[in-house]
Amino acid sequence: MRLASFVTDERQAVGVVADDIIVELEGVNSLKALLSNTTRDLQANVAEKAREGRKHPLDAVQLLPVIPDPDKIICIGLNYRAHQVESGFEAPKYPPVFTRFANSQVGSRQPLVVPKVSEDFDYEGELAVVIGRRGRHIPVTAAAGYIAGYSCYNDGSLRDYQWHTSQFGPGKNFVATGGFGPWLVTPDEAGDPDDMTLVTRLNGRVVQQSPVSDLIFSIPEIIAYCSTFTELVPGDVIVTGTPSGVGAYHQPPLWMKDGDVVEVEISGVGILRNPVIAE
Amino acid sequence: MRLASFVTDERQAVGVVADDIIVELEGVNSLKALLSNTTRDLQANVAEKAREGRKHPLDAVQLLPVIPDPDKIICIGLNYRAHQVESGFEAPKYPPVFTRFANSQVGSRQPLVVPKVSEDFDYEGELAVVIGRRGRHIPVTAAAGYIAGYSCYNDGSLRDYQWHTSQFGPGKNFVATGGFGPWLVTPDEAGDPDDMTLVTRLNGRVVQQSPVSDLIFSIPEIIAYCSTFTELVPGDVIVTGTPSGVGAYHQPPLWMKDGDVVEVEISGVGILRNPVIAE
Repeated sequence: MRLASFVTDERQAVGVVADDIIVELEGVNSLKALLSNTTRDLQANVAEKAREGRKHPLDAVQLLPVIPDPDKIICIGLNYRAHQVESGFEAPKYPPVFTRFANSQVGSRQPLVVPKVSEDFDYEGELAVVIGRRGRHIPVTAAAGYIAGYSCYNDGSLRDYQWHTSQFGPGKNFVATGGFGPWLVTPDEAGDPDDMTLVTRLNGRVVQQSPVSDLIFSIPEIIAYCSTFTELVPGDVIVTGTPSGVGAYHQPPLWMKDGDVVEVEISGVGILRNPVIAE
Repeated sequence: MRLASFVTDERQAVGVVADDIIVELEGVNSLKALLSNTTRDLQANVAEKAREGRKHPLDAVQLLPVIPDPDKIICIGLNYRAHQVESGFEAPKYPPVFTRFANSQVGSRQPLVVPKVSEDFDYEGELAVVIGRRGRHIPVTAAAGYIAGYSCYNDGSLRDYQWHTSQFGPGKNFVATGGFGPWLVTPDEAGDPDDMTLVTRLNGRVVQQSPVSDLIFSIPEIIAYCSTFTELVPGDVIVTGTPSGVGAYHQPPLWMKDGDVVEVEISGVGILRNPVIAE
């Protein structure tokens, strides 16, 4: 099952996607709220709310970030070996954790924005995990039960601001620099992340390509670690790290610029596609 | 004017504090919403809503974090010279920025929680700034106009988790480890931060004491820098950094433990007081 957040008639809506149609869920305007209020069977709940729902051509709606208003966006750094090596950082003993604010996100097809103050706008294709159930101190062996689904994420980074100090925050939080979409795919349909391949394309050229199984810290390990310090709640987003090939380590660096199109495609999940514009 | 978030009759309320009385604002259950919806004169708006408001003895209500649900909690690291020296970090050229999640906060008098997984629970007394007006690309010279008021913050930190990797996030985000209160004091009443003194006491012993004027990056400089990457909105919280004297650099380290009482007092603002309990 594929669930998307979108805008129709100037209001926020949630729909279930089938081929090139999106069926609006009646009485639902927040995917976070839908996940929070579904205590048992999400598929049955969605099926009931979609029964009489309005149908929209997928191409005709404006997609939003899968979760436009998460309580938490937790990002994991340096989580593919080849990226850790290219970055020059030491191999981490724990998952490096930084965060994004919700206003740094855009949905698929919405433009990513190169800010006025920096040209060093880099892509980072990543697999995003959306949390479906409240939990703290989650054991690794139970973590799969807390996953509502998967999506694609482009953890867009202004490298100069990221490296202003030891803390990555500023470079990871420019307005409209993080792509999140096109939709959430539930685990039954997405399959095992270890079987997924992640590809990032800039203007059609493949710039990152990696099996997701190359993650240093697995998704259950990340969920367990994060739930040690914070309580995870439905709609929380965990962005699991990027493979090698980011623009910063090209010679010369390869930055995203006005007029570009960047895509993050993950097999079993979908394609996140964003045009790039100048602020 | 002093504004506090609190609980009465099991619901969230906002009140204006005068001496030992809190006067409930009618029809207001969120200080963030009050700030967002006040386009002109906050004092006049509060006065009108307090006119017929219920009065509570201040000691009888449960205070909440000043802003329980901020869009953003932006924390500045290493922002007092003596703390930067004691930490061994180089002097930063820009404000180091990390973040806290809302669920890491508690109000004054609510307990701070030493988690099961770590004993290295350190205090960090700080001046918090609450944003009152939406803004991006705010010039230093205009920054004062974006401040709704000030409060005390205890940026409680689990040092082992903070130093798991280069990124501070995990150690700064344990549930119920950040004290935020007791209230917001508007700039007209609080006075100039350069005239404030910050004192942290653990079980009555002074462990940090510094003029706020020792900040490396001033409050206007911090607001301007943060507004370069993010859009600030009413209710956003900026925690401006801690002076020297944190427990990690005592010999042996001085951690907060079950049964302790920790206070952050800032002249012109108030006293944030929290008992410490074990998870």
